[in-house]
Amino acid sequence: MDRASPLAGMTVLDLTRVLAGPYATMLLADLGARVIKVEVPEGGDDARAFPPFVAGESAYFASINRGKESIALDLRAPADRAVFEALLGRADVLAENFRPGALARLGYGWEALHARYPRLILASTSGFGQTGPEAARPAYDVIVQAMGGIMSVTGHPGQPPVRVGTSLGDIVAGLFTVIGIEAALIKRARTGLGAHVDVAMFDCQLAILENAIARLMVSGEDPGPLGSRHPSITPFQAFMTADAPIVVAAGNDSLFRSLAEALGLDGLAGDDRFATNAARTQNQAALEALVEARLKTAPAAHWLQLLGEAGVPAGPVNRLSQALAMAQVPARTMLVETALANGQPLKVAGNPVKISGVPDPATRPPAPALDGDRGRILNELGMAEEGPA
Amino acid sequence: MDRASPLAGMTVLDLTRVLAGPYATMLLADLGARVIKVEVPEGGDDARAFPPFVAGESAYFASINRGKESIALDLRAPADRAVFEALLGRADVLAENFRPGALARLGYGWEALHARYPRLILASTSGFGQTGPEAARPAYDVIVQAMGGIMSVTGHPGQPPVRVGTSLGDIVAGLFTVIGIEAALIKRARTGLGAHVDVAMFDCQLAILENAIARLMVSGEDPGPLGSRHPSITPFQAFMTADAPIVVAAGNDSLFRSLAEALGLDGLAGDDRFATNAARTQNQAALEALVEARLKTAPAAHWLQLLGEAGVPAGPVNRLSQALAMAQVPARTMLVETALANGQPLKVAGNPVKISGVPDPATRPPAPALDGDRGRILNELGMAEEGPA
Repeated sequence: MDRASPLAGMTVLDLTRVLAGPYATMLLADLGARVIKVEVPEGGDDARAFPPFVAGESAYFASINRGKESIALDLRAPADRAVFEALLGRADVLAENFRPGALARLGYGWEALHARYPRLILASTSGFGQTGPEAARPAYDVIVQAMGGIMSVTGHPGQPPVRVGTSLGDIVAGLFTVIGIEAALIKRARTGLGAHVDVAMFDCQLAILENAIARLMVSGEDPGPLGSRHPSITPFQAFMTADAPIVVAAGNDSLFRSLAEALGLDGLAGDDRFATNAARTQNQAALEALVEARLKTAPAAHWLQLLGEAGVPAGPVNRLSQALAMAQVPARTMLVETALANGQPLKVAGNPVKISGVPDPATRPPAPALDGDRGRILNELGMAEEGPA
Repeated sequence: MDRASPLAGMTVLDLTRVLAGPYATMLLADLGARVIKVEVPEGGDDARAFPPFVAGESAYFASINRGKESIALDLRAPADRAVFEALLGRADVLAENFRPGALARLGYGWEALHARYPRLILASTSGFGQTGPEAARPAYDVIVQAMGGIMSVTGHPGQPPVRVGTSLGDIVAGLFTVIGIEAALIKRARTGLGAHVDVAMFDCQLAILENAIARLMVSGEDPGPLGSRHPSITPFQAFMTADAPIVVAAGNDSLFRSLAEALGLDGLAGDDRFATNAARTQNQAALEALVEARLKTAPAAHWLQLLGEAGVPAGPVNRLSQALAMAQVPARTMLVETALANGQPLKVAGNPVKISGVPDPATRPPAPALDGDRGRILNELGMAEEGPA
C-alpha cells in the first residue's frame, strides 16, 4: 500500500466475522493498513455464506472485505497456532469479535498477549462489552437496536417497532472500534506499549442517542417516535408533494420566512402560531397541514427547484439508485469498483474519510478467497509448507 | 488531562457549531485532547439556544460540549485574529463545519493554513463535502438522511417516510471525522506534516448502507423498508407479546430449532417452509404469524426469561429510561455526570471507547460558559488584556 496512506506499514491480524469487526478492519485497510483475515478452515467467515450471491460468491462478504488477505488457521491445532503466533509477533493490531472469554479460552486473552507481545493492540468488539453483568449475553444488530433505545424513537407513533434499515448496531460499533484502535496507536507511539480496546455495540447505541438523553434527563419523560420530524426544530421533516415526498429543513426564522414566500404562503410568516421555532414546534401539526396542502399541488421537482432558488434546505427522499446516481457520488469517489474473489466486478461504497495527499482510488482490490494468501504469508514468515504430497 | 489518555498533549482549536463537529471534538476531549471552542461573540455556538433548557441553560449544548474550553473571538477583527493565529501556532488540529469556502473567505483556507502552520491538521465536516457539484448545497440532518437513502430503507412499507430518530447524519459524520483526524495525526508522526481532512455527511450516509448497496448492485432492484425485519436473516425482528414487543434474532438453523422448542412450537422445525434461513426468509410472513400468535399468549418478561434460558438471542424494545436503567450501564460507565456552565448537574452518555490503562471517570468536566476561559487562554499566550476600563 502507498506510503502516503496514514496507516501504511501497519499490520492488522483480523479474527473478526460478519459485520462490526470486518467493517472496522475494512476502514483500516482503506486507510492503508495491511489486513490479514485469519479464518476458520471450515467455510471461513460466516458472511461468505450470506446472500446476495453472484456466481456462487457472496456479494455481502465482498462488500466489506475488499483489500484484505486471507489465511485459514485452526487455532486449536499446534502447527496453525505456531503460524498465528508468528503473525502476532509482526502485527500491530489483533482485532476480534468473539463472545467475551472465547479468545482467552484459546490461550490468547489480553494478559497473555500483552505479556508476550507488549506492543500489540487488541481490539475486541462485542455485543455488551468485556465487563458487566450482561457481558456474556448474545447480541445481534436488532437486539442492541432494541435494547439501546434507538428503536423507541424511530418510526411513526402507534405503529409496530421499526429497526433502522441498516445494521446500525454493528456499523457504529465498527466506527468506534476504529477510533479506539487509532487512539491506541497514537498512545503507543508515545509509550511503546499496546492496549486493549473494548467496544460494546450496546454502549455505542447509547452514545449516538444525542439530545434524546438530555430530553429525558430534563423532562423525566421518555421521548417517543416522531415519524420524520425533529423533536425541537420545525419544519424539519418530510412532506408529501403531488408525486413524491421531499424533506425541508427550515430551522430558523429567516429560513422559515423564505420557505413561506417560496410556497406562496405569505400569511404563514405573520401568523403568531408560527412566529418562532418554539411556536412552530408547538403548533407543528397545524403547520404541517398547511404546508403539505400547498406542496401537494405540484410535483417534487417543481418544489425542489423553487426551494433551491430560495436557499431553503430541501431535498428528495432518494431510493438508493437515485442517491447513487447523483453527480456528487463520482465527484467524491463514493462508489468504487472492486471484485469478488472469483473476479466478478462489484460496486461498493467508497471511503468517506478524504485526506489531502492520500490516494482515493476508484478501484479497490478484491475480497480474498478463503485461505487465498496462505502461500505468500507462510513464505514471508519463513514457514513455507512443503508441496502437496 | 491525564497523561494516560491517548490524545494527552494534543490541542484542538474548535470552530464547529451545533452537532457533527462538536460531537467529534467531544470524542477527542474524551480521549484526552484539550479542546478550545472558538465562538462568535454574539451568542456563541448556535446550540446554546437549543432546547431543552435547565435554569436558562441549554442541556442540548451541555451534553455535547462537556470538558471543552471557550473563548469568544470575532475572526473579522484584527485583535481577535491575532489571538486566533497565536492559538493556531500551538494547535495540532483546527476543526470547522462551516459551509465550504467560508473559512477561506476569512483568510484561513487550507493552502494558507498549511503554508503558515505546516504541522496543523484541518478537519472540515460539511453537508456534501469540499468538492463536487453539490459542495455549496446547504444540508441538515434530515436532508442527508433523505438524500443518502437511509430513509428509503427505514420504516414500514406503504407508510410516510421515517427519519432515524437520532441525528444520524451528523453523528456518523462526527465519527468519521474523528477517524480522519486520528489517521492524520498518525501520518503526521511519520512525516511531520499536517493534512486536510474533508468529511461529508452525505458521503457518510452512503458508507453506512452496508449490504443494501450490494443488494441493489446484484439484483438491480432498490431495497425498500422492512419494518423491524432484516432483509436476509429470519427470524430477526420485533414481535408483539401479550403486553410489549420483544426482538428475537435466531439467525441460524440451530438457534431456530431452539426458538421453536422454547416456544413449544415443535412443528416449526420440521416444516419444509422453515427448514433453512433462505426458506424462512422466503416464507417470513407465514412464520411471523405463527410465532407472534404464540408470543401473544404471554407477557414479554415470560418469553425473555424462557428464550434467555434456551440461549436464543432476544431482548426487550426498551424506552430510553429502561435502557439506561440496565445494570450494564453503570458497570460500563455509560451514563456520566457532568454539569451545565451554571453548575446544574446533568447526566449524559459516556464514552464507548474503553481502552485498558486509560481512565474512564464517571464524572466529566462541565461544558464551558461562552468566553469562560478567555483570561486563562490569553495569559498562556502572553496576550493578557488590561483590566476593565
